[in-house]
Order: sequence, then C-alpha cells, then structure tokens
Amino acid sequence: MKLTLTEKLIKNSLVEGSLERGTRIGIKADQALMHDLNAMMTYLALESLELDKVKINLAVQYIDHNMMQADFKNDDDHRYIQDITSKLGIITARPGSGICHQLHLEHWGIPGKSLIGGDSHTVAAGGIAMLSIGVGGFDSAMVLAGETFYFTMPKIVKVELTGKLPPFVSAKNIILEVLRRIGVKGGVGKILEYTGPGVKTLNVAERSTITNMGQETGATTSVFPSDENTRQWLRAYNREKDYQPLEADDGAVYDEVIKINLSALEPLIALPHLPDNIVPLSDVLGTKVDQVMIGSCTNTALNDILSVANILKGNTVHKDVDIGLYPSTRTVIRESVMRGAYDDIVSAGVRIFEPICGGCNGNGFAPKTDGISLRTTPRNFYGRTGTKTAQVYLCSPEVAAASALYGVITDPRTLDIDDIKYELPERFLDDSNIFVMPSLSPDIVPRRGPNIKPIPPMEAMEDTIKEKVLLKLDDDITTDHICPAGAKYLPIRSNIPELSKHGFKMVDETFPNRAKEAGGGIIVAGENYGQGSSREQAAIIPRYLGIKAVIAKSFARLHLANMCNWGILPLTFVDRRDYEKISSEDILELDTSNLKENKIYTLVNKTTGEKISVQSPASQDELNYIKAGGRINLVKEKLKGIE
Amino acid sequence: MKLTLTEKLIKNSLVEGSLERGTRIGIKADQALMHDLNAMMTYLALESLELDKVKINLAVQYIDHNMMQADFKNDDDHRYIQDITSKLGIITARPGSGICHQLHLEHWGIPGKSLIGGDSHTVAAGGIAMLSIGVGGFDSAMVLAGETFYFTMPKIVKVELTGKLPPFVSAKNIILEVLRRIGVKGGVGKILEYTGPGVKTLNVAERSTITNMGQETGATTSVFPSDENTRQWLRAYNREKDYQPLEADDGAVYDEVIKINLSALEPLIALPHLPDNIVPLSDVLGTKVDQVMIGSCTNTALNDILSVANILKGNTVHKDVDIGLYPSTRTVIRESVMRGAYDDIVSAGVRIFEPICGGCNGNGFAPKTDGISLRTTPRNFYGRTGTKTAQVYLCSPEVAAASALYGVITDPRTLDIDDIKYELPERFLDDSNIFVMPSLSPDIVPRRGPNIKPIPPMEAMEDTIKEKVLLKLDDDITTDHICPAGAKYLPIRSNIPELSKHGFKMVDETFPNRAKEAGGGIIVAGENYGQGSSREQAAIIPRYLGIKAVIAKSFARLHLANMCNWGILPLTFVDRRDYEKISSEDILELDTSNLKENKIYTLVNKTTGEKISVQSPASQDELNYIKAGGRINLVKEKLKGIE
Repeated sequence: MKLTLTEKLIKNSLVEGSLERGTRIGIKADQALMHDLNAMMTYLALESLELDKVKINLAVQYIDHNMMQADFKNDDDHRYIQDITSKLGIITARPGSGICHQLHLEHWGIPGKSLIGGDSHTVAAGGIAMLSIGVGGFDSAMVLAGETFYFTMPKIVKVELTGKLPPFVSAKNIILEVLRRIGVKGGVGKILEYTGPGVKTLNVAERSTITNMGQETGATTSVFPSDENTRQWLRAYNREKDYQPLEADDGAVYDEVIKINLSALEPLIALPHLPDNIVPLSDVLGTKVDQVMIGSCTNTALNDILSVANILKGNTVHKDVDIGLYPSTRTVIRESVMRGAYDDIVSAGVRIFEPICGGCNGNGFAPKTDGISLRTTPRNFYGRTGTKTAQVYLCSPEVAAASALYGVITDPRTLDIDDIKYELPERFLDDSNIFVMPSLSPDIVPRRGPNIKPIPPMEAMEDTIKEKVLLKLDDDITTDHICPAGAKYLPIRSNIPELSKHGFKMVDETFPNRAKEAGGGIIVAGENYGQGSSREQAAIIPRYLGIKAVIAKSFARLHLANMCNWGILPLTFVDRRDYEKISSEDILELDTSNLKENKIYTLVNKTTGEKISVQSPASQDELNYIKAGGRINLVKEKLKGIE
Repeated sequence: MKLTLTEKLIKNSLVEGSLERGTRIGIKADQALMHDLNAMMTYLALESLELDKVKINLAVQYIDHNMMQADFKNDDDHRYIQDITSKLGIITARPGSGICHQLHLEHWGIPGKSLIGGDSHTVAAGGIAMLSIGVGGFDSAMVLAGETFYFTMPKIVKVELTGKLPPFVSAKNIILEVLRRIGVKGGVGKILEYTGPGVKTLNVAERSTITNMGQETGATTSVFPSDENTRQWLRAYNREKDYQPLEADDGAVYDEVIKINLSALEPLIALPHLPDNIVPLSDVLGTKVDQVMIGSCTNTALNDILSVANILKGNTVHKDVDIGLYPSTRTVIRESVMRGAYDDIVSAGVRIFEPICGGCNGNGFAPKTDGISLRTTPRNFYGRTGTKTAQVYLCSPEVAAASALYGVITDPRTLDIDDIKYELPERFLDDSNIFVMPSLSPDIVPRRGPNIKPIPPMEAMEDTIKEKVLLKLDDDITTDHICPAGAKYLPIRSNIPELSKHGFKMVDETFPNRAKEAGGGIIVAGENYGQGSSREQAAIIPRYLGIKAVIAKSFARLHLANMCNWGILPLTFVDRRDYEKISSEDILELDTSNLKENKIYTLVNKTTGEKISVQSPASQDELNYIKAGGRINLVKEKLKGIE
C-alpha cells in the first residue's frame, strides 16, 4: 500500500488502532517537550502519582514563558521545575536560553520520530519531519508516565508547493496563504502534509515557520518531508547521524489537495483579530504603525534575523515606532552577532529582548491603548498582547522591518535594496551547554515556593448529584471567562486554591464565594462552552470549587477533554429548548450511578418538578475518568497496580 | 580665596545665597534629566501650570524604568512623555536605549555645569565633574519651569585617594569602602569631593560608579575633578569641545577628610539589607548563590562588561545559578559585541536583558523565595527586588561573575586568569540616533491613555481645620506603607485617583474608604514618619484622600518636603508625650489662619476637651505652599503674573 508521509510517521509510533480516518488511535511518543507555564500542572500531577522516573526515551523541559519575574512566583516555579526534572530524568534548558520549539528543532528534532508537547505550537517540529502534537499539561504528564496518547485519526491534506518564493516574500506568507484559503477551523480533524517541488526551496527553519503557524488552522499537525535540506540542517547542528530521508510514496492517496504556486505569492497580512483575517499587503499600505514586534516561535530563526538586519542596516527606525525583537535562541543571537546583523539591528534602534516567548503571549511589550502593532507572531487574538484595545496585524519579518523604518505599513519590495541570499551555515556555534542533564537522584525533594500548591485531592463522583445551579450562562463562554488570562494571573497558574478565587470573575465576581458557600453546584450554559485557549485550569478551577456538572447546548472540543480529565460531567440537552427550563438557583438531581456512553439520563429539576432529558458527549473512557473523580485517580490506581 | 572643586561648581550656578555651610542657597541648573517613572508627575504638573516651553538650556528625557509593559499602562506613559517632551522642547531618548545616568554621561555630561535630575542617582554625573543633584518629580517640574532650586549649603568632605586598585578589585570596592566607613547616613548634609593622586587611575565610568552609589551615604552629591581622563572620555564620544580642566585650588579648606589607599583595598561585599552592611568578601566566601544580577546605573559600563566577559570566557555558569545582565546603554552593547565580549557572556549562559533599570528596582528578574542574589546594583533594601524573602548582597561585577561560575561566593583573585587592562577606546561607536529632537510644536495635544489622570485640583487651606483622626500610627511608617511599591503599583503612579485606592493599605485596608466617607481627616504618627523612598505619591495620595495635617513625633526629611510641596501641614508635638492624648476617631481643631515658621499652635481635642501644643517643622516658604493648597498653586499664580 502506498502511504503518505503522515501515515508512515503515525505507523512508526502506533500502538493501538489503524490508519482508518476518524477512528480512535493510540501512539507511544518517542519524545516529549514541556515549557514552564504549562508544565507546572504536569509535574504537580506526576508528583501526586508518585512517579519516580519518566517512562519515555527523551523528555526536554524549557523555561521560556513566565520570564517577567515581577515577584518570587516565576522564579519559584523555575526552581521547582529544575528540581523535579532532575529527579525524574528530564533534560532541562537553562531559563531564558531560547524558545522551546526552536531549541527543540536545533538540538533534539529527529525525522521520523514522534513528539508530544505541552504547548499547542509543538507542531513546529513537523518542519523536521516529526509527528508532533500539542497537548495540555495533564496529557503531557500522561505521556511522561508512559501512557498511550489517543487521538482521532485525521484526514490527510496534501499541500502541494510549486515554484519558488520571490524576493522579500518569505515563508510566513505561505502559511498566511494557507490560512487565507482554509481559515482558522479549516484544519480541524486534519493533518497538513507539504509536498511538491517547492519543498526543496525551503530550509528547515522556513518549513517550521509554516508547520508552527499551521496550528492556527486547527489542524492536528503539519509535516514536511525529510530531504537533503534536513540533512544539511542536522549536519549544521552536528547531528547528521539523526538523518533519514522520508517522504510520501509515489501514488499515496490524500483526502484533500491544496496547491500553492510560491512564485505567484505576494506579501499578505492578517488584520485584527484573527490569523485568518487575511488581505494582500497592498490593501493596507500606509496604515500608521505604533509598535513592531519581531518574535515568537513562528518567525525568529537566523534567516529571519538576517533578513531584518538587511532591511534595517544603516537606517534608523521611525521616531513614532517602538520596535522590539525577541530572538528565538541563544545560538541565533550568537550567529547574528558574529555576522554583524545584531549590530545592524541594535544600531537602527531596535530593543532586543531575551530569547523567550515574551510579548507573544502577553508577558511583556504590550502595546499602548488603541496601538497598532505589527507582529510576526502566530496569533492576533483579541486582548492577547495584554492590551485589549490594541489592533494587532500579523506579517512576515520583512514587512515588519520595512514598516518600522517608515512608520506606516510598507511593502519591503519597494525598498531600494536586494533581498539576502540566506545559506545555512556549514556548522552552527555549539551551544549544548544550554542543557542541564538530570541527576535521577531519588533524594531530591523539589523545593516549592509558597505559591506552588499540590493539586487538591479529588473525590470520586457519588451515585446521585443533587446540586444548585450556580451560574446560568449564555453562548460562547471562553476559557478566558472561566480562568482569566494576563500577566496578573499567569504566575498563579500553579496555585489552584488562589487561582480559583478568580474563577468566572469576568462573568460574575460573586461566583467563587457563592460556590464555596454552597459546597458544590452545577453550571448551565449555551452553545460552544469552553471555547478559546486550551488552559486546563479552566476545568480544574470549577472542579476545585465543587462544580459537579456543566449542562450546555454544546461544548468546545479541547475544553470538553479537559473537563473529563478533571472529573466534571459534561451534559448536553437532548432538546436544546430545555435550556429554558432551568433557572439560576434551581436545585437539580441526577442519577450518576451508571455513566454510559450515549445513554440518555433524566435530570430532575427539584425546584420546578420538571424532568429534562440530557446526555453526555464524553466517551466511555472519559466517563470512567469522571466517575473516578478525574483521570489522575485512575492512573494512580493503575500505576500502583503495576508496581 | 582658595576654593574646593565643589565650591567652584556651586558658584558657577549660584543665584541666591553664599557658600556658608548650613545656609539656604539657590542655583539655576544648566541641565535637567528625567526618567519615565518619576517624570509622569513632572509633566502632569507642568501641564496644570500651562507651561508652553521649558526654561532651561538642556533637558533630556529617558525611558528606562517602567519597561515591563504587562498591559497598556507603561506604553501609554511613554507615548504621553514623547508627545509632551516634543511640545515643551525636551530631547527624548527612545525607549529602552539605555539607563538615564549612563546615557547622560555618554552624550550630555559637561564638566563644570550643573544638573538637576528626577532620580536620586542623578549624582552619577559627579564623575564627569558636574554639580548633580537628584530631586523628586515635582521639583523637576520646577526646574524645567525655570525656578531656582534651593538646598542647604552642605559641608564638603575631601576623599583623598592614593595608590592604585589591585587586579580584580574594581571601583565598586571604593564606594563600598566609603560606605563601610561612614554608613548610609554618613553623607547627610555633605558633598563628597574626591581628590588625590589615585583619581587619575580611574576613568570617568569608574568615577561615576563611585559618585552614583555615593547616593547611598545620604550625601547631597559627590564630585570628581575634570582632568585628562575626562578629556579622553569626551573625545571618545566626539565631544572634546565640552572639556575644561577643573580641580580644587591648592590649599582649599575642607570640613572633613577621608583617606583611602586604593592599593590596600580588598574585595568588599554588602550583606542584606543595607548598602553599608559591609564585610570583607573573605567573610562570606563559599556562601551558596541562587541568582546573580549584573546591572544598574552603578556598574554596567563597558569596562564592567569586558571585565565580566574576561572571567566568563570559555566557561559555563554553575547550573544552580540564574544569571542576568542589564547592560547600561546601547553603545555599551555594541562595543562589547564588537570586542567579542558579548559572545563570551551569552555563551557562558548569561541572560542578557535590555539596557534598562530593570531588576534593580523590582521591575523584573525578582529572585526566588529565600533566594540569595548577588547584585552589582547600588541598593539591597529589604523587598526592593520584588521578593521580600530574598537575601541581596552587593558586590563588584568581578565578584558577581566569579561567583556565578562556582555557584558560591568566590574571590575573583583566586581564578587562574589575569585581570583585563581596560583602555578607553579612541572613539566610541556613534549612537546619537538614540535621541529624538523636540518639535516645539504648540499644536501637539499629548495623548493620554485611560490610566493617565491630571493632577487633581487642590484647594487652599481653610482658616480652621476641624477633622477626625483617621489613623493613629506607630513609629517608622515608611513611604511604602503609605504608597505601596512593586510591579503592580508602579504602572499606576500616574493615576492618583486609582493609586489612592491603595493608600495605607499595608497598615489598614479600610483607610481609603474611610477617608473618602469622612471627606477629610488628620493622621497621627510616631517617630520618623515618611522614611524610605522619596516617592512623592506618598504625599499626594493622602492629600487627595483629604488629609489636612499629619501630627507626628518626627518626620523623615524628604517626605517632609513632599508633604509641604503638596499641601499637607506637618506638625510635631511640643511635648511628645502628648501623642498619648489623641486617639483614633477623635475630632481635632486647629486655627490655621496664620501659619508662621516656629510658631506654637494650640490644637484642641474636641472629643476629650484637652489642649495640645504643636508646631510645624516647615520653613516659611513651605508654610506658604501649604496655605495655598500646594506649591503648584503658587507657581501657577506666579507664572500667570509673568505673562
């Protein structure tokens, strides 16, 4: 049978199921990556499981997200992570040495292997022909504990690239073109597999720009072949031994096809506030710019930095523009220093920050009120920068740099200079001292700062739920509504009792206290409950506050999984008009003695006497998690059984 | 008459008074410098004065303090500052281009001139033989408005340097030695004038390390002669035309003398939590270190960076140490890049941040809980890093770098390397594009973000005060108690109504609401009310909340001046035992129709019927400010009179 590259990669790691589309499959990952923000929950979960050593070939921890250190909390998290990774056998990068996805590509990415990462942009590793999937903190813990990772076998989309990018139209424009065509939901349930003669015109960093931001299509992941460019990349990092050629078989069958002629691409730009809100750059030329940010896992590899330097060299940025650059890794800084590019950038008036995620996720460099910010990042979600009124545009580094010079959105092709011819170096500078090897010493007692609290114990679900409706919500409640985002709350993500004081505060300030007083409760919601970011704290907080079930018209996919993992029963109305039959403060009763997939339950409104039919969208496995009080309790039992 | 250098400098700017010690004198400053954190109040004051152009030869604005940008507030402040400085005729450095004191030395410092700066470490410019004095935001506004600056003519201390610093014992150790000898109050009412043959062994940057941290002795300022080293410095920045030789006359008379033999100095270190808590480094060798921070206006000139690079070159910092470097200016970054020092530092594992004040004042890089942090900064005050439990030690860059390598406090002299021989470059790289020249356009309407509020109007004091005692406090209330510090509150320093919601919250959470409800009030306190930081918001907040007077056993000097500037009447007990005669909630009445210096007033406790004698430590000028409702009201009248 002729296989696509995606199928070959999945087969390499498959332990349950088949390649049949839409079926549930299980893989054993070869590698795991974590970063500090999401990994806190991962390790707190592993501690409560009393794991003494991770059960995976390679696990690498990065410290690149919570780097502001406005008080003790961030640094306490870093210390805890450094202690526990050393104990459990996880390699850890020194704080501030680079953005996880790029560092992983540089030092650990291996064609043909699989990678599960505790961050949605883990999919960047598809650029080096890995099967790479992003998950939440708890699922990371499961992967580290050696558990099988389950997902639905996606459709495979062939993205056929022909031609060659014109000058000043860099790889970012390819993924912007993909987003223009299929939108932010166009990749859901799919893997984007890049093929065609255009592939060989792109180096691994450029491919990774595309796979990384492919996340914004909703795709499970994206993947490029492994070829001579991949070999050259690995050789440049002194890892040629990790090379193997990998591509789809001739005649492999795809579910869909997208064709892109690189030669015909023009610079594109995403308008506020979604990455697929894309127009040709020419539509917005001359728009005044307040801030330019060159950064993030998508777009700060060496080729990006050299390209920016080429545009800025000998110039000064416009006086009304505040421009900042977050390089991707220490090596990228050193290589650009060596080539004079760093000096070209600094002397033009660019603020150069640490090589961290920084401004991309609202951890610094927030724009001014109503500020127009041009960014090379993957996301321009409303409020994500930390400034709700900011207008964020997404573009290539070349458009960002040209616009910084003129103070208005500018087409880099109109500058009176030549584009660079980037050649991958024969050998990058050696920065392997970024990594600290684990000691595996069982004597390590991870030091917890006062803000780091164990995951609270969670009891199994009783056979009858009888609780008050504490909130009745409308449609489209996001995880931001449930668990607020922003620099104020990020440092307390590892402290569920404290974070829970802010649960649902965007909706109802009184909720945390009411829930505490009631000692339990139920939430009723409209459509698409839990949309937005994947943060699992949006499930843990309500659970901690005693919420037993959420009855909604529909749920967002990722949050639904998080609810099940953490033991909240998701229910939908059989007749969605029944939403009207429940009011805030009503007492509801449900028999939960026998949770079964597809079963229809009768919910009794004890206040009105009415009976309402509901069912759960959870799978049987997930219902078992819920009944046990959360997946963590089941895994704990299982691990004890093994010993 | 034979004059000291200090006397010559003061004479250059003197417009009122004489050189007689202890008398009040007035100077017209040649230059002013401001930074973003303190300047917000400066410009809000100037706006309310309706000034259209500053009245000083040179004013330079820097943006180096509030750089975290966790939301819109910091960047809104920067925009407001950029707008208003352009309008008023003030040169502005681009955000993040360097630490104000070092940038000013590089680009604007002129021997023989006077500089008033809105930051306590303005005294750094004494290193280039300027008369430089730090003031609060409102006093900066007065200087910009062309007002005379008054202070008490200090005693002049001759600090005679002989010999030459041994290898790895850099200039920081000289000021640590001064602090060891005279302590953090030893300079109060004095100016430290450095002389002797040791002076010529120090370049301007080293001298400025000493004058800068001289602030921690409480001295009015410190000053070095202008000599061939000064000429070389100016030439290296293409400003030789600004040079003139300046030194004390032979036979000039000093009030005190301190002698330091540089050749005999050993590395010193300040233990937590005061800069004069100094011991020989040998006392603490081997102490485990969690964090190393090389930064601040005191210690990140090019010679410091090259010295650090020399120690780190080819090594990797200890795995348990998190080390960060804030270079002082863009030029220092570029020069260290050009010399390979930057690469030596990055490749050793150092996090390099923007050239800003950053971690020094708790704006980032806060240590972990109980963390031991070695810093090259001037201050190790309790809690200043943002982490209250941190233990901060102050040392030279060489001690910091050596300790980072070994993970314990280490003497750099024991390393198997030679110290560098630093030579000032013939010509530094040209970074004059850091500065944006003002437009002086009257059409500019400074854009205010929603967090920037005008200074609330303040009414003149009525002829009788009859108010309730809202707080009765103990001794040693700091400005931190009155107006909290930290990254959470710094961004709202330009919003008095919002900031006032946190007034006295460290003492009594209910105070802001109670004051608002009462519509006015009086505070009673013990000894040393208002000690600590000079932040004037600690006077503005109580004033905004309606506090008319503070009756205390004694006041801290700087806060006393701020209270008078902002219209709160300071009173002391004639018999301090009368402190016991007032209780919280008592109603007090005072005749304020005729406020006179040294007058004794009778305070009537309407609740108990008792009469209490009080007087005010304010000068007649200050009493006039208070009666007018604040100095701003008087200046407003005066400026209107001039037009």
